Amino acid sequence: MAFKRLSIKTQAKQELIDITDRVQRAIRELGVSEGVCVVFVPHTTAAITINEHADPAVKEDILTMLGRLVPAGAPYQHAEGNAHAHIRASLLGHSVTVPIEDGKIALGTWQGIFFCEFDGPRQREVWIALS
Amino acid sequence: MAFKRLSIKTQAKQELIDITDRVQRAIRELGVSEGVCVVFVPHTTAAITINEHADPAVKEDILTMLGRLVPAGAPYQHAEGNAHAHIRASLLGHSVTVPIEDGKIALGTWQGIFFCEFDGPRQREVWIALS
Amino acid sequence: MAFKRLSIKTQAKQELIDITDRVQRAIRELGVSEGVCVVFVPHTTAAITINEHADPAVKEDILTMLGRLVPAGAPYQHAEGNAHAHIRASLLGHSVTVPIEDGKIALGTWQGIFFCEFDGPRQREVWIALS
Repeated sequence: MAFKRLSIKTQAKQELIDITDRVQRAIRELGVSEGVCVVFVPHTTAAITINEHADPAVKEDILTMLGRLVPAGAPYQHAEGNAHAHIRASLLGHSVTVPIEDGKIALGTWQGIFFCEFDGPRQREVWIALS
Repeated sequence: MAFKRLSIKTQAKQELIDITDRVQRAIRELGVSEGVCVVFVPHTTAAITINEHADPAVKEDILTMLGRLVPAGAPYQHAEGNAHAHIRASLLGHSVTVPIEDGKIALGTWQGIFFCEFDGPRQREVWIALS
Repeated sequence: MAFKRLSIKTQAKQELIDITDRVQRAIRELGVSEGVCVVFVPHTTAAITINEHADPAVKEDILTMLGRLVPAGAPYQHAEGNAHAHIRASLLGHSVTVPIEDGKIALGTWQGIFFCEFDGPRQREVWIALS
Protein backbone atom coordinates (compact mmCIF):
# COMPACT_ATOMS: atom_id res chain seq x y z
CA MET A 1 0.00 0.00 0.00
CA ALA A 2 1.05 3.56 -0.68
CA PHE A 3 0.69 6.13 2.09
CA LYS A 4 1.41 9.84 2.23
CA ARG A 5 1.00 12.62 4.79
CA LEU A 6 0.20 16.22 3.86
CA SER A 7 0.62 19.18 6.22
CA ILE A 8 -2.01 21.90 6.26
CA LYS A 9 -1.73 25.18 8.13
CA THR A 10 -5.23 26.54 8.57
CA GLN A 11 -5.62 30.29 8.93
CA ALA A 12 -9.07 30.90 10.39
CA LYS A 13 -11.40 29.73 13.14
CA GLN A 14 -13.31 27.85 10.46
CA GLU A 15 -12.71 27.49 6.75
CA LEU A 16 -12.90 25.09 3.83
CA ILE A 17 -9.58 24.66 2.00
CA ASP A 18 -9.45 23.19 -1.50
CA ILE A 19 -6.80 20.44 -1.40
CA THR A 20 -7.66 18.80 -4.74
CA ASP A 21 -4.36 19.73 -6.42
CA ARG A 22 -2.31 18.53 -3.46
CA VAL A 23 -4.13 15.18 -3.40
CA GLN A 24 -3.60 14.82 -7.15
CA ARG A 25 0.11 15.62 -6.79
CA ALA A 26 0.48 13.05 -3.99
CA ILE A 27 -1.06 10.36 -6.19
CA ARG A 28 1.30 11.25 -9.03
CA GLU A 29 4.28 11.03 -6.67
CA LEU A 30 3.09 7.66 -5.39
CA GLY A 31 3.09 6.44 -8.97
CA VAL A 32 -0.30 4.76 -8.77
CA SER A 33 -2.36 4.57 -11.97
CA GLU A 34 -5.50 2.64 -10.96
CA GLY A 35 -7.31 2.00 -7.70
CA VAL A 36 -9.08 3.85 -4.96
CA CYS A 37 -7.77 6.79 -2.97
CA VAL A 38 -8.77 7.37 0.67
CA VAL A 39 -8.21 10.91 1.95
CA PHE A 40 -8.34 10.73 5.74
CA VAL A 41 -8.37 13.50 8.38
CA PRO A 42 -6.75 12.37 11.69
CA HIS A 43 -8.41 15.09 13.79
CA THR A 44 -11.65 15.34 15.78
CA THR A 45 -12.53 18.99 15.12
CA ALA A 46 -11.82 18.94 11.38
CA ALA A 47 -13.42 17.02 8.54
CA ILE A 48 -13.25 16.49 4.79
CA THR A 49 -15.89 16.85 2.10
CA ILE A 50 -16.40 16.99 -1.65
CA ASN A 51 -18.28 19.89 -3.20
CA GLU A 52 -18.17 22.55 -5.91
CA HIS A 53 -14.85 24.35 -6.23
CA ALA A 54 -15.81 26.75 -9.03
CA ASP A 55 -17.80 29.26 -6.94
CA PRO A 56 -16.20 30.02 -3.52
CA ALA A 57 -19.65 31.06 -2.26
CA VAL A 58 -20.54 27.36 -1.91
CA LYS A 59 -17.85 26.97 0.77
CA GLU A 60 -19.27 29.95 2.65
CA ASP A 61 -22.83 28.61 2.43
CA ILE A 62 -21.72 25.26 3.86
CA LEU A 63 -19.99 26.96 6.81
CA THR A 64 -22.91 29.31 7.44
CA MET A 65 -25.44 26.49 7.43
CA LEU A 66 -23.32 24.32 9.74
CA GLY A 67 -23.08 27.30 12.08
CA ARG A 68 -26.84 27.56 12.08
CA LEU A 69 -27.47 23.82 12.53
CA VAL A 70 -24.80 23.27 15.20
CA PRO A 71 -24.26 26.66 16.87
CA ALA A 72 -21.01 27.46 18.65
CA GLY A 73 -22.99 28.97 21.54
CA ALA A 74 -25.38 26.13 22.32
CA PRO A 75 -25.10 24.49 25.76
CA TYR A 76 -22.67 21.56 25.54
CA GLN A 77 -21.16 19.22 28.16
CA HIS A 78 -17.69 19.09 26.59
CA ALA A 79 -15.79 21.74 28.54
CA GLU A 80 -13.22 22.85 25.96
CA GLY A 81 -15.59 25.19 24.12
CA ASN A 82 -15.30 23.36 20.81
CA ALA A 83 -18.07 20.77 21.08
CA HIS A 84 -19.74 22.31 18.01
CA ALA A 85 -16.56 21.62 16.03
CA HIS A 86 -16.61 17.94 17.08
CA ILE A 87 -20.25 17.57 16.05
CA ARG A 88 -19.82 19.33 12.69
CA ALA A 89 -16.87 17.04 11.98
CA SER A 90 -18.99 13.92 12.51
CA LEU A 91 -21.75 15.31 10.27
CA LEU A 92 -19.36 15.81 7.32
CA GLY A 93 -17.12 12.83 8.04
CA HIS A 94 -13.40 12.12 8.37
CA SER A 95 -12.64 10.63 4.97
CA VAL A 96 -13.56 10.73 1.31
CA THR A 97 -12.96 7.82 -1.04
CA VAL A 98 -12.34 8.58 -4.71
CA PRO A 99 -11.51 6.33 -7.68
CA ILE A 100 -8.17 6.73 -9.51
CA GLU A 101 -8.06 6.34 -13.30
CA ASP A 102 -4.95 6.70 -15.45
CA GLY A 103 -3.00 8.14 -12.53
CA LYS A 104 -5.58 10.83 -11.75
CA ILE A 105 -8.28 11.16 -9.11
CA ALA A 106 -11.54 10.60 -10.97
CA LEU A 107 -13.64 13.53 -9.78
CA GLY A 108 -16.70 15.00 -11.47
CA THR A 109 -16.35 18.25 -13.46
CA TRP A 110 -17.38 20.55 -10.63
CA GLN A 111 -16.00 18.56 -7.72
CA GLY A 112 -13.14 19.56 -5.46
CA ILE A 113 -11.88 17.99 -2.21
CA PHE A 114 -12.06 20.34 0.77
CA PHE A 115 -10.33 20.14 4.13
CA CYS A 116 -12.85 21.48 6.68
CA GLU A 117 -11.40 23.36 9.66
CA PHE A 118 -13.89 23.90 12.50
CA ASP A 119 -11.57 24.88 15.36
CA GLY A 120 -8.60 26.71 13.88
CA PRO A 121 -6.25 28.11 13.17
CA ARG A 122 -4.09 25.02 13.67
CA GLN A 123 -1.39 22.88 12.15
CA ARG A 124 -3.27 19.95 10.58
CA GLU A 125 -2.58 16.78 8.60
CA VAL A 126 -4.30 14.87 5.84
CA TRP A 127 -3.36 11.25 5.19
CA ILE A 128 -3.65 9.71 1.74
CA ALA A 129 -3.89 5.93 1.52
CA LEU A 130 -4.22 4.00 -1.74
CA SER A 131 -5.69 0.52 -2.00
CA MET B 1 -8.91 -2.36 -10.59
CA ALA B 2 -12.38 -2.74 -11.99
CA PHE B 3 -14.38 0.39 -12.83
CA LYS B 4 -17.90 0.90 -14.15
CA ARG B 5 -20.12 3.88 -14.90
CA LEU B 6 -23.91 3.79 -14.49
CA SER B 7 -26.27 6.37 -16.01
CA ILE B 8 -29.22 7.60 -13.97
CA LYS B 9 -32.01 9.80 -15.28
CA THR B 10 -33.64 11.48 -12.31
CA GLN B 11 -37.27 12.52 -12.66
CA ALA B 12 -37.97 15.00 -9.88
CA LYS B 13 -36.53 18.09 -8.19
CA GLN B 14 -35.47 15.84 -5.38
CA GLU B 15 -35.76 12.11 -4.89
CA LEU B 16 -34.04 9.03 -3.51
CA ILE B 17 -33.61 6.27 -6.10
CA ASP B 18 -32.86 2.70 -5.04
CA ILE B 19 -29.86 1.56 -7.13
CA THR B 20 -29.02 -1.59 -5.13
CA ASP B 21 -29.88 -3.98 -7.96
CA ARG B 22 -27.90 -1.99 -10.52
CA VAL B 23 -24.84 -1.94 -8.25
CA GLN B 24 -25.19 -5.68 -7.68
CA ARG B 25 -25.46 -6.29 -11.44
CA ALA B 26 -22.36 -4.18 -12.12
CA ILE B 27 -20.36 -6.22 -9.61
CA ARG B 28 -21.51 -9.45 -11.24
CA GLU B 29 -20.50 -8.14 -14.67
CA LEU B 30 -17.09 -7.11 -13.34
CA GLY B 31 -16.61 -10.68 -12.18
CA VAL B 32 -15.32 -9.78 -8.73
CA SER B 33 -16.01 -12.21 -5.89
CA GLU B 34 -14.29 -10.64 -2.85
CA GLY B 35 -13.19 -7.14 -1.90
CA VAL B 36 -14.67 -3.74 -1.28
CA CYS B 37 -16.99 -1.78 -3.54
CA VAL B 38 -16.94 2.03 -3.67
CA VAL B 39 -20.07 3.64 -5.13
CA PHE B 40 -19.16 7.22 -5.99
CA VAL B 41 -21.34 10.15 -7.13
CA PRO B 42 -19.40 12.61 -9.38
CA HIS B 43 -21.82 15.51 -8.80
CA THR B 44 -22.03 18.38 -6.31
CA THR B 45 -25.82 18.60 -5.91
CA ALA B 46 -26.44 14.87 -5.55
CA ALA B 47 -25.29 12.34 -2.95
CA ILE B 48 -25.52 8.68 -2.02
CA THR B 49 -26.69 6.98 1.15
CA ILE B 50 -27.63 3.62 2.61
CA ASN B 51 -30.97 3.17 4.34
CA GLU B 52 -34.09 1.01 4.55
CA HIS B 53 -35.53 0.01 1.18
CA ALA B 54 -38.53 -1.96 2.45
CA ASP B 55 -40.78 0.99 3.35
CA PRO B 56 -40.68 3.86 0.80
CA ALA B 57 -41.82 6.23 3.57
CA VAL B 58 -38.25 6.24 4.92
CA LYS B 59 -37.03 7.91 1.70
CA GLU B 60 -39.72 10.57 2.05
CA ASP B 61 -38.88 11.20 5.69
CA ILE B 62 -35.20 11.69 4.83
CA LEU B 63 -36.07 14.23 2.11
CA THR B 64 -38.56 16.06 4.32
CA MET B 65 -36.09 16.35 7.19
CA LEU B 66 -33.28 17.55 4.91
CA GLY B 67 -35.69 20.16 3.55
CA ARG B 68 -36.37 21.32 7.08
CA LEU B 69 -32.72 21.34 8.17
CA VAL B 70 -31.36 22.97 5.00
CA PRO B 71 -34.28 24.91 3.49
CA ALA B 72 -34.31 25.76 -0.21
CA GLY B 73 -35.44 29.29 0.63
CA ALA B 74 -32.78 30.30 3.17
CA PRO B 75 -30.46 33.20 2.25
CA TYR B 76 -27.39 31.82 0.46
CA GLN B 77 -24.43 33.47 -1.27
CA HIS B 78 -24.22 30.96 -4.13
CA ALA B 79 -26.20 32.63 -6.89
CA GLU B 80 -27.49 29.62 -8.80
CA GLY B 81 -30.42 28.96 -6.47
CA ASN B 82 -29.25 25.45 -5.54
CA ALA B 83 -26.99 26.12 -2.55
CA HIS B 84 -29.30 23.98 -0.39
CA ALA B 85 -28.65 21.06 -2.76
CA HIS B 86 -24.87 21.48 -2.39
CA ILE B 87 -25.12 21.53 1.41
CA ARG B 88 -27.45 18.52 1.62
CA ALA B 89 -25.02 16.61 -0.62
CA SER B 90 -22.12 17.25 1.77
CA LEU B 91 -24.23 16.18 4.76
CA LEU B 92 -25.04 12.78 3.21
CA GLY B 93 -21.74 12.33 1.37
CA HIS B 94 -20.56 11.41 -2.13
CA SER B 95 -19.69 7.75 -1.68
CA VAL B 96 -20.63 4.59 0.15
CA THR B 97 -18.19 1.74 0.69
CA VAL B 98 -19.59 -1.79 0.97
CA PRO B 99 -17.89 -5.17 1.37
CA ILE B 100 -18.27 -7.82 -1.38
CA GLU B 101 -18.63 -11.48 -0.38
CA ASP B 102 -19.09 -14.39 -2.82
CA GLY B 103 -19.67 -11.97 -5.70
CA LYS B 104 -22.42 -10.06 -3.90
CA ILE B 105 -22.51 -6.72 -2.10
CA ALA B 106 -22.70 -7.61 1.58
CA LEU B 107 -25.56 -5.39 2.78
CA GLY B 108 -27.67 -5.86 5.88
CA THR B 109 -31.18 -7.32 5.57
CA TRP B 110 -32.98 -3.98 5.40
CA GLN B 111 -30.31 -1.96 3.62
CA GLY B 112 -30.51 -0.53 0.12
CA ILE B 113 -28.20 1.91 -1.69
CA PHE B 114 -29.92 5.15 -2.69
CA PHE B 115 -28.86 7.78 -5.21
CA CYS B 116 -29.96 11.13 -3.74
CA GLU B 117 -31.02 13.81 -6.22
CA PHE B 118 -31.27 17.30 -4.70
CA ASP B 119 -31.40 19.47 -7.84
CA GLY B 120 -33.14 17.48 -10.56
CA PRO B 121 -34.37 16.35 -12.85
CA ARG B 122 -31.01 15.70 -14.51
CA GLN B 123 -28.92 13.13 -16.31
CA ARG B 124 -26.60 11.75 -13.62
CA GLU B 125 -23.83 9.18 -13.22
CA VAL B 126 -22.71 6.78 -10.54
CA TRP B 127 -19.20 5.32 -10.65
CA ILE B 128 -18.43 1.91 -9.19
CA ALA B 129 -14.82 1.16 -8.29
CA LEU B 130 -13.62 -2.11 -6.77
CA SER B 131 -10.46 -2.47 -4.74
CA MET C 1 -9.77 -10.10 1.11
CA ALA C 2 -10.02 -10.41 4.86
CA PHE C 3 -13.45 -10.11 6.45
CA LYS C 4 -14.59 -10.23 10.07
CA ARG C 5 -17.88 -9.82 11.90
CA LEU C 6 -18.16 -8.33 15.38
CA SER C 7 -21.24 -8.66 17.62
CA ILE C 8 -22.36 -5.68 19.66
CA LYS C 9 -25.08 -5.74 22.31
CA THR C 10 -26.28 -2.19 22.77
CA GLN C 11 -27.79 -1.28 26.15
CA ALA C 12 -29.72 1.94 25.64
CA LYS C 13 -32.24 3.59 23.33
CA GLN C 14 -29.37 5.57 21.90
CA GLU C 15 -25.69 5.53 22.67
CA LEU C 16 -22.22 5.83 21.17
CA ILE C 17 -19.99 2.84 21.91
CA ASP C 18 -16.22 3.06 21.50
CA ILE C 19 -15.19 0.02 19.41
CA THR C 20 -11.64 1.15 18.59
CA ASP C 21 -9.96 -1.64 20.57
CA ARG C 22 -12.19 -4.31 19.04
CA VAL C 23 -11.45 -3.08 15.52
CA GLN C 24 -7.72 -3.03 16.30
CA ARG C 25 -7.90 -6.58 17.68
CA ALA C 26 -9.75 -7.80 14.57
CA ILE C 27 -7.04 -6.36 12.33
CA ARG C 28 -4.34 -8.06 14.39
CA GLU C 29 -6.19 -11.38 14.14
CA LEU C 30 -6.55 -10.97 10.38
CA GLY C 31 -2.78 -10.57 10.20
CA VAL C 32 -2.84 -7.56 7.89
CA SER C 33 0.00 -5.06 8.18
CA GLU C 34 -0.71 -2.47 5.46
CA GLY C 35 -3.83 -1.36 3.61
CA VAL C 36 -7.17 0.22 4.27
CA CYS C 37 -9.79 -0.92 6.77
CA VAL C 38 -13.53 -0.46 6.14
CA VAL C 39 -15.72 -0.66 9.23
CA PHE C 40 -19.29 -1.19 8.02
CA VAL C 41 -22.61 -1.15 9.92
CA PRO C 42 -25.23 -3.45 8.28
CA HIS C 43 -28.22 -1.74 9.94
CA THR C 44 -30.54 1.11 9.01
CA THR C 45 -31.09 2.65 12.46
CA ALA C 46 -27.46 2.58 13.55
CA ALA C 47 -24.36 4.29 12.19
CA ILE C 48 -20.64 4.67 12.73
CA THR C 49 -18.49 7.73 13.27
CA ILE C 50 -15.04 8.86 14.32
CA ASN C 51 -14.61 11.41 17.10
CA GLU C 52 -12.83 12.17 20.36
CA HIS C 53 -12.68 9.27 22.80
CA ALA C 54 -10.84 11.04 25.64
CA ASP C 55 -13.80 13.02 27.03
CA PRO C 56 -17.08 11.04 27.15
CA ALA C 57 -18.97 14.37 27.10
CA VAL C 58 -18.32 14.58 23.35
CA LYS C 59 -20.45 11.45 22.80
CA GLU C 60 -23.26 12.99 24.81
CA ASP C 61 -23.06 16.28 22.91
CA ILE C 62 -23.30 14.44 19.57
CA LEU C 63 -26.40 12.54 20.71
CA THR C 64 -28.03 15.64 22.19
CA MET C 65 -27.46 17.68 19.03
CA LEU C 66 -28.77 14.88 16.78
CA GLY C 67 -31.86 14.73 18.99
CA ARG C 68 -32.35 18.45 18.51
CA LEU C 69 -31.75 18.38 14.73
CA VAL C 70 -33.81 15.25 14.03
CA PRO C 71 -36.34 15.00 16.89
CA ALA C 72 -37.90 11.66 17.79
CA GLY C 73 -41.30 13.34 18.04
CA ALA C 74 -41.49 15.11 14.67
CA PRO C 75 -44.23 14.02 12.26
CA TYR C 76 -42.89 11.21 10.04
CA GLN C 77 -44.50 8.95 7.44
CA HIS C 78 -42.58 5.81 8.42
CA ALA C 79 -45.00 4.05 10.78
CA GLU C 80 -42.58 2.14 13.02
CA GLY C 81 -41.81 5.11 15.26
CA ASN C 82 -38.09 5.10 14.49
CA ALA C 83 -37.89 7.36 11.42
CA HIS C 84 -35.64 9.72 13.36
CA ALA C 85 -33.19 6.85 13.88
CA HIS C 86 -33.11 6.14 10.12
CA ILE C 87 -32.42 9.80 9.32
CA ARG C 88 -29.71 10.22 11.98
CA ALA C 89 -28.02 7.08 10.59
CA SER C 90 -27.85 8.58 7.08
CA LEU C 91 -26.45 11.85 8.45
CA LEU C 92 -23.53 10.09 10.20
CA GLY C 93 -23.09 7.32 7.64
CA HIS C 94 -22.76 3.53 7.62
CA SER C 95 -19.01 3.12 7.27
CA VAL C 96 -15.67 4.63 8.18
CA THR C 97 -12.51 3.97 6.20
CA VAL C 98 -9.19 4.10 8.02
CA PRO C 99 -5.61 3.43 6.87
CA ILE C 100 -3.62 0.54 8.40
CA GLU C 101 0.11 0.99 9.07
CA ASP C 102 2.40 -1.63 10.63
CA GLY C 103 -0.59 -3.77 11.57
CA LYS C 104 -2.40 -0.97 13.38
CA ILE C 105 -5.30 1.27 12.45
CA ALA C 106 -3.74 4.67 11.77
CA LEU C 107 -5.98 6.98 13.81
CA GLY C 108 -5.17 10.46 15.04
CA THR C 109 -4.19 10.96 18.69
CA TRP C 110 -7.67 11.88 19.90
CA GLN C 111 -9.70 9.73 17.52
CA GLY C 112 -11.81 6.72 18.40
CA ILE C 113 -14.28 4.72 16.30
CA PHE C 114 -17.83 4.78 17.68
CA PHE C 115 -20.76 2.51 16.92
CA CYS C 116 -23.86 4.75 17.01
CA GLU C 117 -27.08 3.15 18.27
CA PHE C 118 -30.20 5.18 17.51
CA ASP C 119 -32.96 2.62 18.12
CA GLY C 120 -31.76 0.25 20.81
CA PRO C 121 -31.23 -1.71 22.82
CA ARG C 122 -30.54 -4.38 20.19
CA GLN C 123 -28.17 -7.09 19.11
CA ARG C 124 -26.03 -5.47 16.40
CA GLU C 125 -23.14 -6.31 14.09
CA VAL C 126 -20.15 -4.48 12.68
CA TRP C 127 -18.35 -5.85 9.64
CA ILE C 128 -14.66 -5.25 9.06
CA ALA C 129 -13.36 -5.59 5.51
CA LEU C 130 -9.75 -5.03 4.49
CA SER C 131 -8.64 -4.09 1.00
